[in-house]
Amino acid sequence: MAANVQDVIMLVGDSLTQFGWAQGGFAQLLADRYVRKLDVLNRGFSGYQTDWAIPVCEQIFAKQHEQHHVPKVKLLTIWFGANDAAPAPFPQHVPRDRYKENLSHLIQMVKSPTSAYYSPETRIILITPPPVNTTQWIMPTSPRVFETTKAYAEAVKEVGEKEKVPVADIWTTIFDGAGRTEEGCAKYLSDGLHLNSNGYSIVFQAITDIVERVYPELNPEGVKLQDVFIPWDEVNVQNPGPSLVKRNAEL
Amino acid sequence: MAANVQDVIMLVGDSLTQFGWAQGGFAQLLADRYVRKLDVLNRGFSGYQTDWAIPVCEQIFAKQHEQHHVPKVKLLTIWFGANDAAPAPFPQHVPRDRYKENLSHLIQMVKSPTSAYYSPETRIILITPPPVNTTQWIMPTSPRVFETTKAYAEAVKEVGEKEKVPVADIWTTIFDGAGRTEEGCAKYLSDGLHLNSNGYSIVFQAITDIVERVYPELNPEGVKLQDVFIPWDEVNVQNPGPSLVKRNAEL
Repeated sequence: MAANVQDVIMLVGDSLTQFGWAQGGFAQLLADRYVRKLDVLNRGFSGYQTDWAIPVCEQIFAKQHEQHHVPKVKLLTIWFGANDAAPAPFPQHVPRDRYKENLSHLIQMVKSPTSAYYSPETRIILITPPPVNTTQWIMPTSPRVFETTKAYAEAVKEVGEKEKVPVADIWTTIFDGAGRTEEGCAKYLSDGLHLNSNGYSIVFQAITDIVERVYPELNPEGVKLQDVFIPWDEVNVQNPGPSLVKRNAEL
Repeated sequence: MAANVQDVIMLVGDSLTQFGWAQGGFAQLLADRYVRKLDVLNRGFSGYQTDWAIPVCEQIFAKQHEQHHVPKVKLLTIWFGANDAAPAPFPQHVPRDRYKENLSHLIQMVKSPTSAYYSPETRIILITPPPVNTTQWIMPTSPRVFETTKAYAEAVKEVGEKEKVPVADIWTTIFDGAGRTEEGCAKYLSDGLHLNSNGYSIVFQAITDIVERVYPELNPEGVKLQDVFIPWDEVNVQNPGPSLVKRNAEL
């Protein structure tokens, strides 16, 4: 493991991911939880959809021959749909079937042994888009439809089943928490489309739950993941150097 | 620039840095400010002091021949002293003169053309430890003395002057904000030693001010720093691929 590089959690998505560095955002919560173990790389791109994610990921995923040098992606979240679900003819629109193909393509880039980007140690979590609250959303240049986004959230679950990738179905958790009304979703949304800290808390919890259940070796409180450098009170005070050797986070 | 690697801000220090991923912590605020431009790597190690920082940094700074592969450190904060200032014979204690030498050593690792770790494009900011409020701090196994930490904060400024590295003198800003009383520092401290979000806000502001004044090319709102991938409304919808090319953040 070279130099400043540690293993990472990579968050790929749209503005819901990009804004995850806010206070109480899921990137912030994950970075805090995994500090000294795994770095968090936020690869959220506001406004992007899955057609555009593919050429981007071809540049931000490491090819097999590069993987030795660069941070190893231990956990990858893929979270699109909020923009793909924009109705045609808006430029962000991606038809639901192609959206599903694109998500499968992103997964296969990492999971297929014949892919140039094959990375068997990368665990993937798919995240559904949250419900939109159109009564709260006021950006006429980029409209959304409640039932359409719901159908795109369903599509994520279909892809997860097909590709055998766990899905953080935050659409359902948020809608349930909202009393199953569109307007009730305001509790979790800052503007009808983006999440506030209540919403991000659900995303973080869903990821944490999947890690514990499906990828327990990545539980930072478990026995398989350690600090890259030892706790200070284990440093050999008389001869600190040999005790301060960089280690892999994952045992 | 290979694969998932982007240029970074690296934060090196003790628990004050490690806890910077908290909500309102300076790592979180920087990550949010620089999203899509620079990643933030938190290299804070709770309880560590500068004697131990040197062997650690020999492993987390990239040597010249490695720098091509790994994230380029555009900005480096060095923030120790809170533990070095523990009184002897506590194992964290580092005498003030050696503390200064250690800080100089860390700086010279990056700035000296004869260093294996020489990195001329890495801009450095030193940060002073904050004042301790001993009336608030209750950990008898690791005592602190107000005047001692004050002297270590002064030492950082002396090193900054000698090495020509800008200093975020948060000791003074916090003490001034506290009405220049030790007890008043409780406003900025969670436990007498560590910062709450008021304290971190001062650290973030001090870094931002130094960037604008000394390293304006790293101002994320300036003209020299750009998103690695273009804004979504600049994507060529008819032929997205060629418009979605990864760029250097710094022009």
